[in-house]
Amino acid sequence: MLLHLSTWPEVETYLQKSQGIILPLGSTEQHGPTGLIGTDAICAEVISRGVGEATQAMVAPTINVGMALHHTAFPGTISLRPSTLIQVVRDYITCLAKAGFTKFYFINGHGGNIATFKAAFSETYSHLEDLQIPIASKVQCQIANWFMCGSVYRLAKELYGEQEGSHATPSEVAVTQYVYPEAIKKAYLSPEVASGHRIYGAVDFRSHYPDGRMGSNPDLATPEHGKQFYDLAVEELSKGYLEFVSQE
Amino acid sequence: MLLHLSTWPEVETYLQKSQGIILPLGSTEQHGPTGLIGTDAICAEVISRGVGEATQAMVAPTINVGMALHHTAFPGTISLRPSTLIQVVRDYITCLAKAGFTKFYFINGHGGNIATFKAAFSETYSHLEDLQIPIASKVQCQIANWFMCGSVYRLAKELYGEQEGSHATPSEVAVTQYVYPEAIKKAYLSPEVASGHRIYGAVDFRSHYPDGRMGSNPDLATPEHGKQFYDLAVEELSKGYLEFVSQE
Amino acid sequence: MLLHLSTWPEVETYLQKSQGIILPLGSTEQHGPTGLIGTDAICAEVISRGVGEATQAMVAPTINVGMALHHTAFPGTISLRPSTLIQVVRDYITCLAKAGFTKFYFINGHGGNIATFKAAFSETYSHLEDLQIPIASKVQCQIANWFMCGSVYRLAKELYGEQEGSHATPSEVAVTQYVYPEAIKKAYLSPEVASGHRIYGAVDFRSHYPDGRMGSNPDLATPEHGKQFYDLAVEELSKGYLEFVSQE
Amino acid sequence: MLLHLSTWPEVETYLQKSQGIILPLGSTEQHGPTGLIGTDAICAEVISRGVGEATQAMVAPTINVGMALHHTAFPGTISLRPSTLIQVVRDYITCLAKAGFTKFYFINGHGGNIATFKAAFSETYSHLEDLQIPIASKVQCQIANWFMCGSVYRLAKELYGEQEGSHATPSEVAVTQYVYPEAIKKAYLSPEVASGHRIYGAVDFRSHYPDGRMGSNPDLATPEHGKQFYDLAVEELSKGYLEFVSQE
Amino acid sequence: MLLHLSTWPEVETYLQKSQGIILPLGSTEQHGPTGLIGTDAICAEVISRGVGEATQAMVAPTINVGMALHHTAFPGTISLRPSTLIQVVRDYITCLAKAGFTKFYFINGHGGNIATFKAAFSETYSHLEDLQIPIASKVQCQIANWFMCGSVYRLAKELYGEQEGSHATPSEVAVTQYVYPEAIKKAYLSPEVASGHRIYGAVDFRSHYPDGRMGSNPDLATPEHGKQFYDLAVEELSKGYLEFVSQE
Amino acid sequence: MLLHLSTWPEVETYLQKSQGIILPLGSTEQHGPTGLIGTDAICAEVISRGVGEATQAMVAPTINVGMALHHTAFPGTISLRPSTLIQVVRDYITCLAKAGFTKFYFINGHGGNIATFKAAFSETYSHLEDLQIPIASKVQCQIANWFMCGSVYRLAKELYGEQEGSHATPSEVAVTQYVYPEAIKKAYLSPEVASGHRIYGAVDFRSHYPDGRMGSNPDLATPEHGKQFYDLAVEELSKGYLEFVSQE
Repeated sequence: MLLHLSTWPEVETYLQKSQGIILPLGSTEQHGPTGLIGTDAICAEVISRGVGEATQAMVAPTINVGMALHHTAFPGTISLRPSTLIQVVRDYITCLAKAGFTKFYFINGHGGNIATFKAAFSETYSHLEDLQIPIASKVQCQIANWFMCGSVYRLAKELYGEQEGSHATPSEVAVTQYVYPEAIKKAYLSPEVASGHRIYGAVDFRSHYPDGRMGSNPDLATPEHGKQFYDLAVEELSKGYLEFVSQE
Repeated sequence: MLLHLSTWPEVETYLQKSQGIILPLGSTEQHGPTGLIGTDAICAEVISRGVGEATQAMVAPTINVGMALHHTAFPGTISLRPSTLIQVVRDYITCLAKAGFTKFYFINGHGGNIATFKAAFSETYSHLEDLQIPIASKVQCQIANWFMCGSVYRLAKELYGEQEGSHATPSEVAVTQYVYPEAIKKAYLSPEVASGHRIYGAVDFRSHYPDGRMGSNPDLATPEHGKQFYDLAVEELSKGYLEFVSQE
Repeated sequence: MLLHLSTWPEVETYLQKSQGIILPLGSTEQHGPTGLIGTDAICAEVISRGVGEATQAMVAPTINVGMALHHTAFPGTISLRPSTLIQVVRDYITCLAKAGFTKFYFINGHGGNIATFKAAFSETYSHLEDLQIPIASKVQCQIANWFMCGSVYRLAKELYGEQEGSHATPSEVAVTQYVYPEAIKKAYLSPEVASGHRIYGAVDFRSHYPDGRMGSNPDLATPEHGKQFYDLAVEELSKGYLEFVSQE
Repeated sequence: MLLHLSTWPEVETYLQKSQGIILPLGSTEQHGPTGLIGTDAICAEVISRGVGEATQAMVAPTINVGMALHHTAFPGTISLRPSTLIQVVRDYITCLAKAGFTKFYFINGHGGNIATFKAAFSETYSHLEDLQIPIASKVQCQIANWFMCGSVYRLAKELYGEQEGSHATPSEVAVTQYVYPEAIKKAYLSPEVASGHRIYGAVDFRSHYPDGRMGSNPDLATPEHGKQFYDLAVEELSKGYLEFVSQE
Repeated sequence: MLLHLSTWPEVETYLQKSQGIILPLGSTEQHGPTGLIGTDAICAEVISRGVGEATQAMVAPTINVGMALHHTAFPGTISLRPSTLIQVVRDYITCLAKAGFTKFYFINGHGGNIATFKAAFSETYSHLEDLQIPIASKVQCQIANWFMCGSVYRLAKELYGEQEGSHATPSEVAVTQYVYPEAIKKAYLSPEVASGHRIYGAVDFRSHYPDGRMGSNPDLATPEHGKQFYDLAVEELSKGYLEFVSQE
Repeated sequence: MLLHLSTWPEVETYLQKSQGIILPLGSTEQHGPTGLIGTDAICAEVISRGVGEATQAMVAPTINVGMALHHTAFPGTISLRPSTLIQVVRDYITCLAKAGFTKFYFINGHGGNIATFKAAFSETYSHLEDLQIPIASKVQCQIANWFMCGSVYRLAKELYGEQEGSHATPSEVAVTQYVYPEAIKKAYLSPEVASGHRIYGAVDFRSHYPDGRMGSNPDLATPEHGKQFYDLAVEELSKGYLEFVSQE
């Protein structure tokens, strides 16, 4: 059930049987010479919708832009600052919690979002308690990273070994190819790809990762792989969601 | 050209011929008993993509959640506060301006966004000048409301007269029906619909507009009308965009 | 009744018969070679006091400095950022609403304030509801621009035609001449005056409007005209205020 | 020279001979049963204008609303939060410093403003250095409290002794009577007046100072005293201003 | 009783007999060629602990970093901006007030903190009232500057006369020598020491106070003096604390 | 080399040979019935000083209060909100980076800090690049959690097995016993200890972890264990620090 394709009376009805909601969480950032700038949002959205269908859960509109400041030296990247994102998350959850939602399951496509969203959850719990709405102490947020699912991780290892890398990975590129086969990009990818340097600021990042990839070989991706990753992630995260909403 | 389906080298290439970008601007808010919660985002997105195709312009990911605080007494509405949105807009434009974009054309689907975005543009111009990047004084933002296009307005008048109303209007519902014919909702709509009360806070709004509509009769909408509105808006805003990017 | 010339027991008494208050809203910004930097505040203040007398309404101290970032490349301009102004408005209204005021009528002298104040009103309604004070949902703010009064507009058209322009207009200059005849300034005004360029950042503004005027000829202003504009604005806004406070 | 009665070319000319500006700093807060809510702003404004005339200095529009949170349990009080005021001061000074002003002399009528403005000055110096404008390191702010002038203090002691008190004092009331003889208020003032309790929050304040006075007897004030205080303050602060602007 | 060496049940027990807490407030800033960068924190901490022992009061962890922006042109200085500190103080007091503390006694070692903390107290009182916790109106904060104790001041005058100065003073250096005799630093101190220039921004400060001292001769300090200052401050502030907590 | 026991010329000298600095990062939060409220700060501080000695590195004053909002339902806990901490970190690093430090090694004692500090680092890198100081792109921050050192983890496993738990652990309690043997607390600890519930808001946390422990048995701690943990952490983190500062 997609929130943006629902009416408010439908949401009202939904809340009588469930207080859970899935929020797809992406990023708009460079993904190397061939990866789509929307990769993280595309993956998070499609998997969220799959989980939503499998679990009858409400799915919110995708958060397209996240915390990608370290990618901003590459054109096309858009990032919010962490301090902005904390306010964004606070606003989202406050609106939805006032309406009765208490279980917020963020399906995330970008590692760089994790820290900021965890910080934002803490800030939001405290804010809701300050508002003294009775539901405040029941609000729970969880961030579920599809790319860290055990099954996904194992398949990526099996298919790509070390060439999975950690950014612009063949696994995430494969999912985008599955969703948008018409947007598969080709470009020369140097077989030598930078890796091993920690992430600091944007200028530093680009100087160490000149083409934007981090240890990955996205040339290995295929739409068929993408379908496999999608299926695994949907299955694992559907379980995760159901467990989450069923816990006290 | 959709930013999220592009690679960073493609953006780099694009910037050599154009510094313009279209940003679809929606909202996630109640639209009466039969209007979709995503109505404003859906309309802004589809029209933006139409304009993007017609003008070869880059189209950014849709800003799904805007300023809809007055709708938050209805479940399913998500709103940012204006102070949050100002930071969001600042972050978006700062990232893109550093990369070389200077012409920001927001195609907007929600009247409630206008004031906050205009405020945000002023804040951002000043911020960019403070950053002392050479491009700062060239950055220009414009908000183009598809529902205020002369041609759209005239057609709505012709088709619906007074029943167009000002929220959950048949014209915007028609566009969503054109885009998502599978999501056309039916529900009883009282022929007596509230109108004429100004917009203040959320509780006040719901008490005056109990089913969420403002003077409108969305039952009049059809997908065919939606196609007409879409075509008119794309044509008029394409001209608007081209004029905007060609001005000094 | 001027708030700054009242005592707190007088305010307490006033609140028993009315919960309305008028807030004059100006700006401190360049108004061309001959217009006073305080033009917008002067006009808003004098008209507010006229309306206050005509309607027995409380008038707050003038907000002298508003949103004029686009004028800051001219010396003497002082502007708050929109994000600052939102906090200012929130603080004003929160203080006054806690005391019992619910109807806030901003008489505004500067077009550049409109967007930011509308955004600020939305932010404030939401803030007051979060504070859970019982009066929260009754708080209503309205911005009334004296220069947009129908009667004012018609007189300006009649007296000045196209030479009214849109900044440093003869109509607003006339009102300041009526209030401060001793401060009528003379300087050479080029008959060719810039117009038609949209407003973006401060540097861009000054490069397009080198002497600060926007299409206007303030030489046409006279103190007598000022008196006429004043009378018309007071009459029209007095009606507007009374309607506003009488509405539910 | 009053900024709001000047044109921008006049400001440009002024800056060639002086970079100093006087900013009157008041408050909008209860001043006991007979003191005007605008007392602090009225005093600061009239004295600032006197100093401006005596020294040929530019005088900015009065900051009418300051830090008076502890008075907000009395109706009619308007206060900004310190965090808001810091942004306001930053915005004022940044605008004026970019235009060339470097010496900011705040003539203050309210003790409660002092801490917040000193904090704001520190924040602003640092902000200006971050902006890297060449003038940054020359910007200097000073807060001059007219009621702490040695000559004023001595006269108050002489005229009123212990009955001067520390809020709604006869000396400040006298100045307002001198400026607005038509607004002299009469009300029964209990001869027993609270004093000696430190200032904490608004509720605490009102519970300890039930009529708003702090140890004062404003019944002693006369317009003639007001004139004397005015003359002394203008003389002493004029010296203070000239010293300030002449220092490196 | 030191908070950081207590358990939460011990704090719970403490709160049954007292709602007072001492918060040592320092700074991390240059103190001339021989003064320790931690001088203000060291003094505040040791004296706070002395007062805590003498009065059986709870002592919070030391706030090591305060408002020292004007010292930031010297390496090793760390300062928060006033706007940051206001949030820090708000967070500290909100946490402790929710737990039941109402009397906050800040023992301060740095003059530059005073304004910002007073502003922060005002902001916090208002915030707590907005939270509508019943204890809100009982929360009281006081800042007690050990270096302004009458007894300390007299001893400094007696021992050092004019050479006490106002920053990197022999009295504060003496206290650090008493606490850390192993960290007594020696360096050539010019007998000519700058003084008399007001404090503005960091660059201005360093240009006027090139070695960081303000009119002081820290060479006069001895650990024995430090013991004397410590004893006097502990005695005087213990009285101050007991008075503070016993007041309504 | 401890920053607070250094002078500014000593810092200047230090910067000629190293641009690295260690920042101990603790928390002030409940640690069960017998754990000290300052546990995390105590551990971080002592280990940081050990590492500082081993590596000749500068050690900053301890950040005593971190992100512990989920513990605030227990008295004695003090927490900053994440949005506050981001500003704090930004201010610390900006001051130190302007002075020439580029390598910031946070030795952390509290898992709850990690997300917020990582978010803060991202915000700070971007801020420093905006300031356009040449050193900006060289600034690197790392958070090193002593309790996650491989050697520490193995010893904890060996000594305590499952009873290590995840909050108020015997390993961290042991370190505090080693540092403060005089502050070893005894209290009845139920052998049944809660575990397995995720961390959300403060009220929820206390309802699931009624005595504050998370699956741990701090009764197993001894000062001797503490010494062992200390030695292992210092050794491992010293290597970590040296690697960090030696990397480009």
